[in-house]
Amino acid sequence: MLKHWNDGPTKSAIVDFVGRVTTPGPDFVAPQDRIAVFDNDGTLWCEKPAYIQLDFLMRRLAAQAAADPALAARQPYAAAASGDLDWFGAAVTKHYQGDDSELKVLATGILSAYSGITVEEHAARVTAFFAEVRHPTLDRSYTECGYVPMIELLRYLESNAFTCYIVSGGGRDFMRPVTDGMYGIPPERVVGSSVGVTFADGNLVTTAQPEFLNDGPVKPVRIWDRTGRRPMFAAGNSNGDIEMMQYTKGFRLLVWHDDADREFAYEAGAEKALKMAESEGWTVASMRSDWAEVFPR
Amino acid sequence: MLKHWNDGPTKSAIVDFVGRVTTPGPDFVAPQDRIAVFDNDGTLWCEKPAYIQLDFLMRRLAAQAAADPALAARQPYAAAASGDLDWFGAAVTKHYQGDDSELKVLATGILSAYSGITVEEHAARVTAFFAEVRHPTLDRSYTECGYVPMIELLRYLESNAFTCYIVSGGGRDFMRPVTDGMYGIPPERVVGSSVGVTFADGNLVTTAQPEFLNDGPVKPVRIWDRTGRRPMFAAGNSNGDIEMMQYTKGFRLLVWHDDADREFAYEAGAEKALKMAESEGWTVASMRSDWAEVFPR
Repeated sequence: MLKHWNDGPTKSAIVDFVGRVTTPGPDFVAPQDRIAVFDNDGTLWCEKPAYIQLDFLMRRLAAQAAADPALAARQPYAAAASGDLDWFGAAVTKHYQGDDSELKVLATGILSAYSGITVEEHAARVTAFFAEVRHPTLDRSYTECGYVPMIELLRYLESNAFTCYIVSGGGRDFMRPVTDGMYGIPPERVVGSSVGVTFADGNLVTTAQPEFLNDGPVKPVRIWDRTGRRPMFAAGNSNGDIEMMQYTKGFRLLVWHDDADREFAYEAGAEKALKMAESEGWTVASMRSDWAEVFPR
Repeated sequence: MLKHWNDGPTKSAIVDFVGRVTTPGPDFVAPQDRIAVFDNDGTLWCEKPAYIQLDFLMRRLAAQAAADPALAARQPYAAAASGDLDWFGAAVTKHYQGDDSELKVLATGILSAYSGITVEEHAARVTAFFAEVRHPTLDRSYTECGYVPMIELLRYLESNAFTCYIVSGGGRDFMRPVTDGMYGIPPERVVGSSVGVTFADGNLVTTAQPEFLNDGPVKPVRIWDRTGRRPMFAAGNSNGDIEMMQYTKGFRLLVWHDDADREFAYEAGAEKALKMAESEGWTVASMRSDWAEVFPR
């Protein structure tokens, strides 16, 4: 097991922890309480040069701008139409640094981008996106942008009777159509941000009303809603994962993006999390040193 | 299987449906899509003479009134202190008939009744309540107020690879501490109304803010949030279950409380659902005729 992890203290720490909680003794945890939570963007799949979901949204915003010149003059439609990824990336980075001004402009566009369709139609559009679109620089489809050591870790935990959930700031209904195929995680174990849906004529239809931004202190709240349990294992990579880590009693794994050759090297949006890993004794997984492979071959 | 159900059209309809969706052919449903949703109050456990959760809340409100005379003069504390169940029952019945005025007064008291404690402490109080309190008229503890034919139905569906969820207007965190023991349903498969919880100092703490009233058109929305799937089987008993039934493609079972000898006979709050069962072809389970037993012996 864990053959895509290089031998060393990170791999040993994971294996030691799993051994302790599955072996009768003081650290034993009953199988039903072996809950593991995984962030998605930057933890299970690549989030650079931009969130995959931003690509999905930008294509829709650009199409809306092309159909309506009044929209094309405004943000976020103007940035989407010109492919100005930096505007989008800056809005999110500023959010993690405490400035929500541009995120709010972005959110208004995002919230209405796919409003007024059934959840099944929304899922079909997500599925079509993943079938068509490739990562802009990695020469692979987005569905091949999951990290093989992390997918292997999901299986390793499951083989030790853990139940794994994805708990992401990304959209619940954006992830669900692909998480089973990419990660072996079914829709009922995907927790994410959500836009409200409403019941109409026997169907659920998307609205433009925000429901949950599943980030930071909201993550533990939504984990409780979904599971009614406190996790024993958490994996994340950014400042938005800190509270999920703090809520977790057990093992905390922070993915460190330090591999410019095989993926991307960055600490923006993870500065506080990396400091806390040191002060709180969380385990840091260096992509460069700890991972034998990054992506599926 | 289903030995607590009398032979007849209701039992036959259930068995026929399960046979069809589990047998290769035009009606076959893949195991992962065999989602069943069960209302709780009046569907899985007895809801008369009052919701069990009202008893839990009234005891707390009465204790608050005893500790604070200013509270004791106001509703809902006055009704709780005098054991005036009718005031509480009327507030809920009026809600189902479209008048929310008293429910709002009730809700304010309910929302703050258990605010400011950790979710673990809340669960401990629920557990203590169920360990101590008995049903006021049925001469049994509340944990023995589950309907054995319905619990048997949960097991029957599970033995046919269905995954069963509770989807109740009752409190998510009121049900969770007892659903595993009473029904074999773990906390991650309990969907209910919720009061907001907030992350503080590494813990989740209850607030007095309403989050979801999981009733009527909200039920399909919360089912989608929890499962990401459309149910194939739904069981309910009241007007608050109508939209959940409409969202379900497959089998709809409506429990009809027509057994004054063994339980209670009433249609208040279920008038519309009983009419729709007829017009929409839902299956009605008569407690009197279809159930060989009601409660555990």
